[in-house]
Amino acid sequence: MAGLDSFFHPESVAVIGASRTEGKAGHTVVANILEFGFEGRIYPVNPGAGEILGLRAYASLDDIPVVPDLVIGVLPREQTLGMMRQCADRGASHVIIPAAGFSDAGEEGRRLEEEVMSVARSADMRVMGPNSIGTVCTAGRLATSIVTLDRMRRGSLSLFGQTGMFSSGIARWIDTTEHFGVSKIACLGNKADVEENDLLEYLGGDEETRVIGVYTEGVADGRRFAGVLREVSARKPVLLLKSGRTATGRRAIASHTGALAGSEGIYSGLISQAGAVRVNDFEELFDCAKAFDSQPLPRGNRVGVVSITGVGCVLAADSSARFGLEIPLPAEETVRKTREVLPEWFPISNPADIWAGIEAHGPKKAYGAVAGAIAGDPSIDSIMMIFTLIPESRFDVLELFESLRERCPDKPLAAVMMAGDAGMHAEWKRSLETSGFPTYPSPERALRAIGALWRYAACSRRGKSLET
Amino acid sequence: MAGLDSFFHPESVAVIGASRTEGKAGHTVVANILEFGFEGRIYPVNPGAGEILGLRAYASLDDIPVVPDLVIGVLPREQTLGMMRQCADRGASHVIIPAAGFSDAGEEGRRLEEEVMSVARSADMRVMGPNSIGTVCTAGRLATSIVTLDRMRRGSLSLFGQTGMFSSGIARWIDTTEHFGVSKIACLGNKADVEENDLLEYLGGDEETRVIGVYTEGVADGRRFAGVLREVSARKPVLLLKSGRTATGRRAIASHTGALAGSEGIYSGLISQAGAVRVNDFEELFDCAKAFDSQPLPRGNRVGVVSITGVGCVLAADSSARFGLEIPLPAEETVRKTREVLPEWFPISNPADIWAGIEAHGPKKAYGAVAGAIAGDPSIDSIMMIFTLIPESRFDVLELFESLRERCPDKPLAAVMMAGDAGMHAEWKRSLETSGFPTYPSPERALRAIGALWRYAACSRRGKSLET
Repeated sequence: MAGLDSFFHPESVAVIGASRTEGKAGHTVVANILEFGFEGRIYPVNPGAGEILGLRAYASLDDIPVVPDLVIGVLPREQTLGMMRQCADRGASHVIIPAAGFSDAGEEGRRLEEEVMSVARSADMRVMGPNSIGTVCTAGRLATSIVTLDRMRRGSLSLFGQTGMFSSGIARWIDTTEHFGVSKIACLGNKADVEENDLLEYLGGDEETRVIGVYTEGVADGRRFAGVLREVSARKPVLLLKSGRTATGRRAIASHTGALAGSEGIYSGLISQAGAVRVNDFEELFDCAKAFDSQPLPRGNRVGVVSITGVGCVLAADSSARFGLEIPLPAEETVRKTREVLPEWFPISNPADIWAGIEAHGPKKAYGAVAGAIAGDPSIDSIMMIFTLIPESRFDVLELFESLRERCPDKPLAAVMMAGDAGMHAEWKRSLETSGFPTYPSPERALRAIGALWRYAACSRRGKSLET
Repeated sequence: MAGLDSFFHPESVAVIGASRTEGKAGHTVVANILEFGFEGRIYPVNPGAGEILGLRAYASLDDIPVVPDLVIGVLPREQTLGMMRQCADRGASHVIIPAAGFSDAGEEGRRLEEEVMSVARSADMRVMGPNSIGTVCTAGRLATSIVTLDRMRRGSLSLFGQTGMFSSGIARWIDTTEHFGVSKIACLGNKADVEENDLLEYLGGDEETRVIGVYTEGVADGRRFAGVLREVSARKPVLLLKSGRTATGRRAIASHTGALAGSEGIYSGLISQAGAVRVNDFEELFDCAKAFDSQPLPRGNRVGVVSITGVGCVLAADSSARFGLEIPLPAEETVRKTREVLPEWFPISNPADIWAGIEAHGPKKAYGAVAGAIAGDPSIDSIMMIFTLIPESRFDVLELFESLRERCPDKPLAAVMMAGDAGMHAEWKRSLETSGFPTYPSPERALRAIGALWRYAACSRRGKSLET
């Protein structure tokens, strides 16, 4: 069987059902391919259209001068079987099928999908879908989504799942709200052929991918999944959002994709034994992905917290245990160093509330001195800085983080922007995140991400010591 | 003892330590009072300054022509005792003390605070602080915060706590990011006189306040708190963020305010028995506040979910039980009505995934038909609509919500904007929230808020039936 690379790095792409009409999926796919700057050959196929978005259109697959590496078949489900036969005749090896109404829609759909797949199997074709919204590959400058996308920043996070969210709403959200880049996205749809295990193996070996994010409602081959997940997790972090935790959730899954969600207990054990990072929702998935993408793994679970607000300190302390973290008392030497900016009468601890120091010396000096002391404290493994974005606390926050990274390159750093001005929030987020420092809107969310780094680090270390 | 009204609705305000120098707290307070459009008399007090921000300054409290209803004493802690004696001599009844370094800072500070308070008690003065960042009252057009604020929208949510966050970062966040308004904010600081119970009683009887949000690290008089909280919760929802759940959290509280956080078990029982709504962090506090501020209380815990995305359905279903909610199967009549926009082969349930209907009929017709059917379903108590903000799903969402409110004015409504364009997100959030429909970025957060509405409704109903 052919590998998956042609879904992401094809040299030539054919779009069957390409359309001149804006708003139609067959138009959107061609527009997306052009928008992302695809450098290979593009062959729109449409019996009636001479030209689509400036590209010559072909009447049929047979008229295209080469066998395309990848076919996107944007046709109604009724025409899918015929299209697959043409693909088989022409020798096409990789096909994406966006149409829904197959195994996602009752018995008739299931039969139709089986016919489609028997054509694919007999011709050794790899199929993504049916019911797949498409793929993205930033290095390959390709997007095959049937939902309009803007060109995305290149990065090293790859995402896949049965859902179309990654190739549609989430891609647009990352593009317009976040500052991390993406390597690959795949929407697997009904998983009639290509499924979670295939993607995991492919991305595990993909040099363009450093972090993998997965949404799944259930896998068909649980035994293979356990093995593949363990193997890939040993090489790079896999963040896994597995739904179907509750009976109501499993009922919704059955109605959604017809998948058997499986027992929550079995999945839970399988995921933690494999050393994957389980997340509970998309927010947590991306909060963690940002941290894994930019920060080193911590040596231990002890966090140093520096905060402008006492409430930030208390909320951080309150939630640390939930994420498997400790906020230990600082070393004496650390306390001594912070006295440079904090009055004698001001209690200093960890979490360190430095409001009095900011009032007396301004935020730059106060944060710099206390964070610097904690950076050098051997009993601290990672550092979380809490800010409140008011005019009184404005300073060059990027300079602070860059100096911390220089002083302790092995400690994960995170910035919490707890309330304050929307404009200042957008500015600091952009400044810090484009330079490799993740930001979070609350101490709880930052600690949750640091906790995930630590759990994965502890697991990898265990794995390594078992090997030697 | 005098009531608290003069902290929010004074007719005259004196600012002792008022300053001409921008950036100084004594300048900021005067600037904030002017920015909010205070219509009473303002008396800056400063021995050296003839005029501050266009206002005549007075050399001392004695020179002011009237006894001011409210004094804000923006002086270092060393000058606080002397200032309090002057206030007592002049007959001032209400004083806010922003200076820190009292009971928040060791034994010496504690003694100093005791001296200050003995002056206050002997003159029957009410004191907010020391270590109070100040107050806001939108109806009174007053802000006494020592942190620069812009004028805030008037609304019916009131907030208080020992923390300065409400009068600083959170006020700025609400102002620049959110669309709900605020009635009153109070930062209690060290709570040497005015404490949680006083504010709760005051806001419980305040006609300008419909919803109360509280942050507390512990109250001195737990027995009174239990009674007051129950009494106020019977009249309006009290959302309570009580920290100190864990040992590390309690250690941080001791270091922060020196408060005794008390046993988590005792607080937990006390809060739920009082019928207050406990929240776990600021995000949850404001998510719930938005819902209480704009939506009716539901008659039951059964939620109808309409979604463009199957994943939204599954995640909603998965988390519903956690918030005490059910997502029941729809009535037969409801299913029949949705067939108007959904093909026969498309499985329809609750949560209702309507992607096929949107593809066939566009979002306006598909959402309208399915949500309309659910609005009329007597087995559904509240409605959550899930959107993904992609160009393909753009329509007049406000029109949809207004028609739903008309059809079922007794059912809470919530919009989930799950991923998508930042610009479209800001536009829909503004459009819906300024018209009284809360929005959330995930199904989990919307259900958490609906769950809080339901818990409070169930509690109030129990209370009422006990009375009759």
